[in-house]
Amino acid sequence: MNIETHLQACKLEVDRAMENYFSGQADWPPRLKEAIVYSLKAGGKRIRPILAIAACEACGGCRENVMPVALALEMIHTFSLIHDDLPAMDNDDLRRGLPTNHKVFGEGLAVLAGDGLLAEAFYLLSQSTSNLEVLRDIALATGSAGMVGGQVLDLEGEGATLTSIDLEKIHRYKTGRLITVSVTSGAKIAGAKPSELEALKAYGERIGLAFQIADDVLNVEGSREEMGKSIGSDQDNQKATYPSLLGLEDSKTKARELVEAAILFLKPFGAKSEALSAIASYIVLRKN
Amino acid sequence: MNIETHLQACKLEVDRAMENYFSGQADWPPRLKEAIVYSLKAGGKRIRPILAIAACEACGGCRENVMPVALALEMIHTFSLIHDDLPAMDNDDLRRGLPTNHKVFGEGLAVLAGDGLLAEAFYLLSQSTSNLEVLRDIALATGSAGMVGGQVLDLEGEGATLTSIDLEKIHRYKTGRLITVSVTSGAKIAGAKPSELEALKAYGERIGLAFQIADDVLNVEGSREEMGKSIGSDQDNQKATYPSLLGLEDSKTKARELVEAAILFLKPFGAKSEALSAIASYIVLRKN
Repeated sequence: MNIETHLQACKLEVDRAMENYFSGQADWPPRLKEAIVYSLKAGGKRIRPILAIAACEACGGCRENVMPVALALEMIHTFSLIHDDLPAMDNDDLRRGLPTNHKVFGEGLAVLAGDGLLAEAFYLLSQSTSNLEVLRDIALATGSAGMVGGQVLDLEGEGATLTSIDLEKIHRYKTGRLITVSVTSGAKIAGAKPSELEALKAYGERIGLAFQIADDVLNVEGSREEMGKSIGSDQDNQKATYPSLLGLEDSKTKARELVEAAILFLKPFGAKSEALSAIASYIVLRKN
Repeated sequence: MNIETHLQACKLEVDRAMENYFSGQADWPPRLKEAIVYSLKAGGKRIRPILAIAACEACGGCRENVMPVALALEMIHTFSLIHDDLPAMDNDDLRRGLPTNHKVFGEGLAVLAGDGLLAEAFYLLSQSTSNLEVLRDIALATGSAGMVGGQVLDLEGEGATLTSIDLEKIHRYKTGRLITVSVTSGAKIAGAKPSELEALKAYGERIGLAFQIADDVLNVEGSREEMGKSIGSDQDNQKATYPSLLGLEDSKTKARELVEAAILFLKPFGAKSEALSAIASYIVLRKN
């Protein structure tokens, strides 16, 4: 399997489904819809939807059933990007090479575009799956014990002296849990067995952390063009990162080891987990 | 039935359930939990939970079953207050006589406290009801076609010349739909018949609008002490209000007429709708 081609095809399918979904919504205030669609279209890699789809297919499920869950996960991720970029948080002017939401639409509308996306994600989930457990898992991974809580820890950590244990906790909350739930939700939609769920949870936790370490490495090494945001911005915000705590080489080694460990958990799935395996490898090889 | 006593008893029960719910959550960042609990405890009237409970009981349901839905509605309402008070929105320093969330915890944490509350509301709903329709209704009334959309319309309306039709649309989105869904959710939890749902929806739409008109009137007439926020703040923000469009007396008349119309829809419920009827009357009689 050529992973670049696979990711690209899967991403296009997610994009099409997203476009289709947002072509309705006639009763939304037009400017709000514009702000929401602006950030959704701003060139994300769609890692979370792709993971949900790959996990579902690894467990014998079909893509059509998992697509609404995949879209909801991307909406939640996009909501978090819009809010994290706000002046009161990371104060970023650029995201994926484009002006951030509040730079284009103003802070008030940016807050509301994020709020609208979060509510819409749960609307979509409640409409498209009868699996309340999936909805509950996603809400948990999103809120105060997950992504939102992680952003709080991240803000509190700015300028503080953190250990690598502190840093790992921040990332487990901030990105790890939503990435892990992307994998397990896909599996649950496919009706995965408990042993399959266990293995995929372990896989998700490891690639979630690897993803964040790779992000930190790219923030040091990447070019502005490849990353589409200001390089070295973590340093400017006095944020602890894996390279600043472990050094660049040890960070890369840790990310690679996590990916290898993640892939070991895929063994019972055989050929059906090829996509999941390739995504894991892609995480440490990607350039943006 | 003495409505003041009834509302007070019901409010206390909601407060106790809320306190109980938030006494757990050990894995939330402590400062985030503090910010969330601060705004939840800041003396709300708990109108939405009380409406959900009253509607459930009017349809023969029991209070225990509707309580989680009632709490989720209050969380969503509180999330909207925290975000609406932000400097980029209404820029309010006081709410219910206390400093607003961002004044105490800073803007970043206030945004995240709101986000955390919204996610938690859906977590609670997904955990406590198997009624996906209720969850879907609440998500719809919360998001871009509801409360969040209404706040966008409200922001866009500042300084603009609005008709009373524009104003009614803003309020239908911003407060009407969440109030209506509080009523219909309670009814659905009780397993209401279609004809009962129809009647309660009509009741909810009317009291939702009456509530907002009464709020506008109080913003002109109320004392700072009673309202717990700056009086005349709507005028400062150049917001169109019912008194500014219809005049004070006609606004009061309109609110009273809406309440009377709402109460007519309760007739088929007989004595079981006494609480709903009393809440409707309270809306135009309240002093804060």
